[in-house]
Amino acid sequence: MINYTATYTDKYQLTMSQVYFLKGQKETRAVFDYFFRKLPFNGGYAIFAGLEDLLSTLDILRFDKNDLGYLKELGYHPDFISYLKGFRFSGNVYSSEEGDLVFPVRPVLQIEANIIEAQIIETLLLNILNFQTLVATKASRMRQASEGRVLIDFGLRRAQGPGGYYASRAAFIGGFDGTSNVRAGRDYGIPVSGTMAHSFIESYDDELSAFFHFAEVQPHDCVLVVDTYDTLKSGLPNAIIVAKKMEEKGLHLNGIRLDSGDLAYLAKESRRRLDNEGLSYVKIAVSNQLDEYIIKSLLEQQAPIDVFGVGTSLVTGHPDAALDGVYKLSMANGKPRIKLSENISKITLPHRKQVFRIIDSDNKFAGADAIAMADEQNVEIMYHPMYPLKSLSLIKYFKEPLLHQVMKSGVRVKNPKTLTEIVQYSQSRMEQLPEEYKRFDNPHIYKVGISKRLQTERDKLIDEFKK
Amino acid sequence: MINYTATYTDKYQLTMSQVYFLKGQKETRAVFDYFFRKLPFNGGYAIFAGLEDLLSTLDILRFDKNDLGYLKELGYHPDFISYLKGFRFSGNVYSSEEGDLVFPVRPVLQIEANIIEAQIIETLLLNILNFQTLVATKASRMRQASEGRVLIDFGLRRAQGPGGYYASRAAFIGGFDGTSNVRAGRDYGIPVSGTMAHSFIESYDDELSAFFHFAEVQPHDCVLVVDTYDTLKSGLPNAIIVAKKMEEKGLHLNGIRLDSGDLAYLAKESRRRLDNEGLSYVKIAVSNQLDEYIIKSLLEQQAPIDVFGVGTSLVTGHPDAALDGVYKLSMANGKPRIKLSENISKITLPHRKQVFRIIDSDNKFAGADAIAMADEQNVEIMYHPMYPLKSLSLIKYFKEPLLHQVMKSGVRVKNPKTLTEIVQYSQSRMEQLPEEYKRFDNPHIYKVGISKRLQTERDKLIDEFKK
Repeated sequence: MINYTATYTDKYQLTMSQVYFLKGQKETRAVFDYFFRKLPFNGGYAIFAGLEDLLSTLDILRFDKNDLGYLKELGYHPDFISYLKGFRFSGNVYSSEEGDLVFPVRPVLQIEANIIEAQIIETLLLNILNFQTLVATKASRMRQASEGRVLIDFGLRRAQGPGGYYASRAAFIGGFDGTSNVRAGRDYGIPVSGTMAHSFIESYDDELSAFFHFAEVQPHDCVLVVDTYDTLKSGLPNAIIVAKKMEEKGLHLNGIRLDSGDLAYLAKESRRRLDNEGLSYVKIAVSNQLDEYIIKSLLEQQAPIDVFGVGTSLVTGHPDAALDGVYKLSMANGKPRIKLSENISKITLPHRKQVFRIIDSDNKFAGADAIAMADEQNVEIMYHPMYPLKSLSLIKYFKEPLLHQVMKSGVRVKNPKTLTEIVQYSQSRMEQLPEEYKRFDNPHIYKVGISKRLQTERDKLIDEFKK
Repeated sequence: MINYTATYTDKYQLTMSQVYFLKGQKETRAVFDYFFRKLPFNGGYAIFAGLEDLLSTLDILRFDKNDLGYLKELGYHPDFISYLKGFRFSGNVYSSEEGDLVFPVRPVLQIEANIIEAQIIETLLLNILNFQTLVATKASRMRQASEGRVLIDFGLRRAQGPGGYYASRAAFIGGFDGTSNVRAGRDYGIPVSGTMAHSFIESYDDELSAFFHFAEVQPHDCVLVVDTYDTLKSGLPNAIIVAKKMEEKGLHLNGIRLDSGDLAYLAKESRRRLDNEGLSYVKIAVSNQLDEYIIKSLLEQQAPIDVFGVGTSLVTGHPDAALDGVYKLSMANGKPRIKLSENISKITLPHRKQVFRIIDSDNKFAGADAIAMADEQNVEIMYHPMYPLKSLSLIKYFKEPLLHQVMKSGVRVKNPKTLTEIVQYSQSRMEQLPEEYKRFDNPHIYKVGISKRLQTERDKLIDEFKK
C-alpha cells in the first residue's frame, strides 16, 4: 500500500553516502547488525515481525524521478545523483525467521552490503522492523492473557496513520484471529470481521428496527451492539427479541457486543439472561480500551466473554509506543568495527556473527542465546556481555543457528513465506518457550551471552581505542 | 505517499452500508461530528492537524479493482458492489482551520453526507486526524519548552511504520524547524537536515580522518558527532582540530552533536572549550531520548544547547500514543440523533452545530468555546455540558465562528492551504492563547460549553429515549 522510494530515509544517510562516494569509498563493504537493547512492555520475550515486508521493499527500492529532482534541489553533487539513479539494494541479508522469539543484544538480522546501500536502507529497515516487532509482541501478550478466546484487531481508527496497516499484519503474527482493517485483509489475507456501530442504531428511530434490518441483511453474520441507549433495559432485551425471531426462520443470532460500562458485570448478566432464554449459543463480544491486563482481569473475574475487540493499545503498542531497535556497524573495509560508550551496555559487538539458540533435551528453549563469530561451529561456553565472570556451559545442549541468509546480492534466496506459515512458526516457537518467560510480572530473564572468541575480539578492539 | 483506497476502513462500515443500501436507505443524509474527549499529555490545548491530507484523500478516494474483487470474495451483494464501483465522496465538510487550537467535546469538524459515504470515510478520517493532531500537539509542547532553540525531527526510524511520514508534517505544524525525513521534505516542502552517524566515524580507522573527509565534502554544512569513542577526550578535541583547519580556508564548522552521556554537563564543557579556542560560533546540537520535559530541564540547567534533535517521543506522541478522537452521528434523515451512555460525559450532542471562540478586547482567547446550533447567530450565555448550574455570560465578548465549509458536494470550496500558511496561522493562534493554558503542570482548564438552545434540544432527546 505504501509507495516507498529510497528517499524514505534520514538526510544524514544521503550526506554520509555522498562523502563515501566522492572520497572513493563507494565500494567499501560493511556489515550492520539490527538488534534492540530492551524487551518491550517489561516482558520476557519479543516476536520478530516485518521481515517479509522489508525484503519485498528492498526488492523494489529505487530513487524515482521526483526523488532525484529533489536531491538536486538540495544541492547534492551531480555525480552522486547520477550514481543514485542506478541505486538498488544488492547486498546480503542474514536474518532470524520472521515470527521467531527474539531477545536483547543479539543480532536479529545482519546486512552485508556496499556501505552506501547499507546506510540508505537503515531508516527504512528500522522503521519497518521496530514497529511490527513491537505490535506482534503486544498481540502475543494479549494472546497469552486471553486463554483461547477470539481476538480481533479494531485499531485502525486510532492507529498512527498508515502504521495501522502494518499493525494489523503484526497483530496476526502475534496471535490475533482477525482484523476490522479491510485493506490489510485484502493485501495480507488476514480474516476480516466487524459488527455494527452505534451510529447505525441511532440512524433509526428505534433500536429494534435497526436490529431487525441488520439481521435481515446479515442473517449468518449478525452481532448486535447493545449499549447505544441502555444495555440491560434496551439493547439486550431487543437482541433477545431478534434472536427469537431469527430462530423462527431457522437462523441463529451470532452474538452481542458490549462497548461500555462494567464489562465483567454486563457480560455475566447478559450471559445469564441469554441462557435463561435458551440462547446459550449467542456469543458475547466486548470492546472498549482493552489491553492484556484488562483481558486477564476480566477472565479472572470469570466474565463469560467469547470475543475481545482490541484497538488503541494493540496498534500503538501502548505504553511503549516504540521498540528501541538500532542498526550498528560491525565491519567495514574488511575490519571489525566498534562503538564505545560511556555506558558499557551500549558498546557494540564487532564482526559478522551467528546466534545459537540453546535447546534442551525436551526440545524446549533452555533460556539462552549465544552470540558467536559467524564461522564458529560450536560454542561450549558463553559469557555475559558485560560481566565476564558470569558464564554458562552449553556443552550438554543442542544449539540451533538462528541467522539464515535470506537475500544474496540483492536477490531472495528462498520463496517468500506466507503469513500463515509465519503464524504457525511463531506459535511453535511460543510452545518451545517455558511458561516463566511468558508471565507479565517479573518474567524470568532470558540469557544472552557471547562466545569466548567474540569476547576476545571485542576486548582487543576496545583496548586499541583506549590507547 | 500512501495509496489509499476506500477499503482503508473497518469492515463494519461496509457491512452497515450494505444494510442501508439493500434496505433502501442509501439516500439518507447524515451528519457526523469529529471531536475528542480528553486533551493529550495532560496539557491545556491541542493543535488540529491533518485536514489538508484528509481533504486531498477524500478527493481521490475510490474502490479500485482489487478492492471490488476482494469485496466480492467476502460475499458482499453484487448490487452493492456495483454501487461501490461509482463511490466517491460527495458530501459537505465543515471544519476548524488546520493549525487552530482545539479543545475537548466541541466538534472539530463535521461531515454532512449520504450516510454510506459518511460511514465509509469514518475510519480514514479518524486515522488521519487523530494522529496528526496528537503529534502536532506534542511538537508544540517541545516548542514551548525550547525557548526559541532549533528543533529537528529525527524520528522516522522509531516511528510507527509510515506513520512517520505524517508525523514529520504534524511536527512542523506544531512548531518544529525541520526534519531528517527526506521523503516528507520532498513531498511537503519541510526543510530537511541531518548530521552524521557514529557508523560513519567507525568505518574509518580513526575519528580525525572521518571528520576531515566529512568537512571536505560538506564545507558549508558540517556538524560532527563527537561521542563515538569519547566525547571530551577524543570527539571534541578532534572537532576543534577540524574547526581550526577549516578556519585556515576561511570556512566555519557549523556544530558538534552530543548523543550520549550527561547532555547538560557535556554541553557546558564543550561550550567552554570551544569558546576558549575562539570557536564560539560552533553550535551545539544534542539528541538521545529527548522529550519536552528533558528539553525544559536542560535549559533550566543553563545548558548551552542550540539545536535539539527529537525522535521517538515526538513521532509516536509518547506516552499517550493516540488521541481519543471519535466520530459520532448527530443527524440522520433530517432528525437529530443522540447516543446515551451510562457515563454522562459520553452522551453526544445532536444537530448540525457551530462553535464560537470567545475573544476578549485584547484579541486574546478568553478561555472558552461555545457550541451552538448551526443557525445560531449569537450566544449570550453558555452552559457546562454536564453541570447545567455552571454557566458563563458571553455578552461582553467577541465570538469567532470556528467551523467553515471547506468541501461542498465533494468539491473543495477553497484553495488548499500551504504548509507554511498553516504553520503561521497556528503560531498566531498560540500567541492568542494566554500562558496559563500552555504550562505543563496543571494547566488552566479551557471551558467548553453549550448554548441554551442546544442544551434544550439535547435534553428533549434524552427524555424521549428515557421513556
